Amino acid sequence: MTTRPSTHQVPEALAGGDSDDGPAGPPAPEPSHAERCRTLVAGANRGTLCTLAADPPGYPFGSVATFALSDVGDPLFFVSLMAEHTQNAERDPRASLLVAEPVAEGSDPLAAGRVTLLGDLAQVAGEERDAVRDRYLAANPTAAYYIDFGDFAFYRLGVKALRYVGGYGRMSWVDAQAFAAAEADPLVASASGIVAHMNDDHAEALVLVCRHQAERPETTEATMSAVDRYGFEVVATSPSGRAGIRIGFPEPVVTPEEVRAALVAMVRQAREASPTP
Amino acid sequence: MTTRPSTHQVPEALAGGDSDDGPAGPPAPEPSHAERCRTLVAGANRGTLCTLAADPPGYPFGSVATFALSDVGDPLFFVSLMAEHTQNAERDPRASLLVAEPVAEGSDPLAAGRVTLLGDLAQVAGEERDAVRDRYLAANPTAAYYIDFGDFAFYRLGVKALRYVGGYGRMSWVDAQAFAAAEADPLVASASGIVAHMNDDHAEALVLVCRHQAERPETTEATMSAVDRYGFEVVATSPSGRAGIRIGFPEPVVTPEEVRAALVAMVRQAREASPTP
Repeated sequence: MTTRPSTHQVPEALAGGDSDDGPAGPPAPEPSHAERCRTLVAGANRGTLCTLAADPPGYPFGSVATFALSDVGDPLFFVSLMAEHTQNAERDPRASLLVAEPVAEGSDPLAAGRVTLLGDLAQVAGEERDAVRDRYLAANPTAAYYIDFGDFAFYRLGVKALRYVGGYGRMSWVDAQAFAAAEADPLVASASGIVAHMNDDHAEALVLVCRHQAERPETTEATMSAVDRYGFEVVATSPSGRAGIRIGFPEPVVTPEEVRAALVAMVRQAREASPTP
Repeated sequence: MTTRPSTHQVPEALAGGDSDDGPAGPPAPEPSHAERCRTLVAGANRGTLCTLAADPPGYPFGSVATFALSDVGDPLFFVSLMAEHTQNAERDPRASLLVAEPVAEGSDPLAAGRVTLLGDLAQVAGEERDAVRDRYLAANPTAAYYIDFGDFAFYRLGVKALRYVGGYGRMSWVDAQAFAAAEADPLVASASGIVAHMNDDHAEALVLVCRHQAERPETTEATMSAVDRYGFEVVATSPSGRAGIRIGFPEPVVTPEEVRAALVAMVRQAREASPTP
C-alpha cells in the first residue's frame, strides 16, 4: 500500500504563509533522525571541528576539518600536530563536528539539514592505524600528498551525543547508540541525481503524484526536494500556496532502478485514477 | 614601480613537488592578515557558531548561523531563543564564529581561506537594536519572514581574538584591535568576477605578466587565483612544476576599472619588453 503523505514546514509556512495541513491519515514513512544523521555524514567529507582553546581559555574554537567515517559512524581526522585544533584536543579531548548539507547559492542555509556530533577526540595508534589511513584516503584523495608526513596524526571522535536539525522545525537530540547502529541511506550517492532528473524531465509526473497519492488535487506545480529509501519530498504549489509534503514508496527501495520502477508505477496509478480527456 | 612577486606554497609545494623559490627581491605588497580577515567576513553571511553545551557539559557545540557585521567587524546574529546555541550563550557567553571561503566542488577545502573569531556573545538591546536589525536584514534578506517574531533576539559577538588560516602554511593569530581598525578589501564583491574574466579571456596576458613582471620566463601557463587592492595571485606552470606567486600592482587599486587599467598597462609593458617576432 502507499502510505499517506505527511506535511512539514517550509520557510513560507514558518511565517504563516501556508496553513494547509494536508489530508489526514498516518504519516508517510521516513528515515529516523539517527538514519538521517548517518546519511548526512556519509555524504560529506568536511565540516567544522570544534575544540576548546587555550587562549582565550576555554573558548570554543571552530576550524575546518576533513574527515572519513568508521564502521559505527565515528569521524576520523588526519591533522597536523602543529594545528590549533590538535593542540586543543591534546589538552582537552572534548570536541564536536558540525556537518551541513551543501546549500545552493542564494538558498537559505537554515532550511538545510545539519548534524552536530559531540564526543571525545583520541589519537589513533597501533594496529588500528592502517585501516583508518585507508578509510581516510578513500574519502580524501587529495591527502595522498601528505598522508605519510611525520608531523600528522589520525584522530577519532568517539561520538557520545548528536544534535540533528533537518531545517525549520525538524530537530532533535539523537541517541549515540541509535546513530552507531543506523545505516546510511542506500541512495546517498544517487539522491541528488534522481532529484535533478525528476525536476528536469518529469515535473508533470510529480504533479500527478501530488494530486493522486498525496490527495492534493489542486496541485499545479511540484518540485522534488529529497529522496530516500522510504519515500521522497516535494514542494507542491496550489492556489492556496506552497507546502512541503512527503510521499512514501509502497515498499522501501535500495537502488536508483528501484526508485525509477516505484515512481513509474505510482504515475501509472495516478493516470489510471484520473485519466486526462 | 612594480614590486617583485612573492612565492607562497601551493599543495604540490607542500608535498615537495615544487622547490622553486622564484626570483629574490622585496616581497610583493599584500593585505595584512587583519585586512584578509575583514575581507573574508565581509564577503560572507554564514558560518559555524561555536558555543559551550550544557549536556554533555562544557563540550564545544558547532551550529549553522547566519550573520551580519557591525562597523568594527563584530558578527551580529538573529537567533531563536529556543535554539541550542542561544541557550548555551545565555549560560556561558564564550563563543567563536568560523567563516570559510567558498570551496569549489572537488577542490581542497584546506587550501582555502578561513578565520575563527573568538569572543563573548551578548544580546543586543535598547536603542542599538534598530540599527542591528537593519544590518542583519540587508545581509540576510530571507530573514524578513521572521524578523519580527517575538521569540528571536539579536546577539553580538564581541571579538577578542582571531585565528586566520589562508591555506597551507599561511596562518597567524590576528590582533582584535587591528581587525577592528582594518578595512575590507574594496574589491570584495568584484574579485571573483575579475578572476573568472581573466582566466576565461586573458590567460595569455597572465602568462606574459608572469614571464616579465614576475621574472619567470619559463612560464607556459598561468591561472589567476585571487585579486585584491594591492595585487593578485597566480598559479604559474613551467617545465619545473607549478608555483603560486603574487604580483603587486604599481599602486593600490580601488575599483574594477582601476584593476583593468593596471593590468592593461602591465601587459603592455611585458609585450614591449619581449616583443613576439
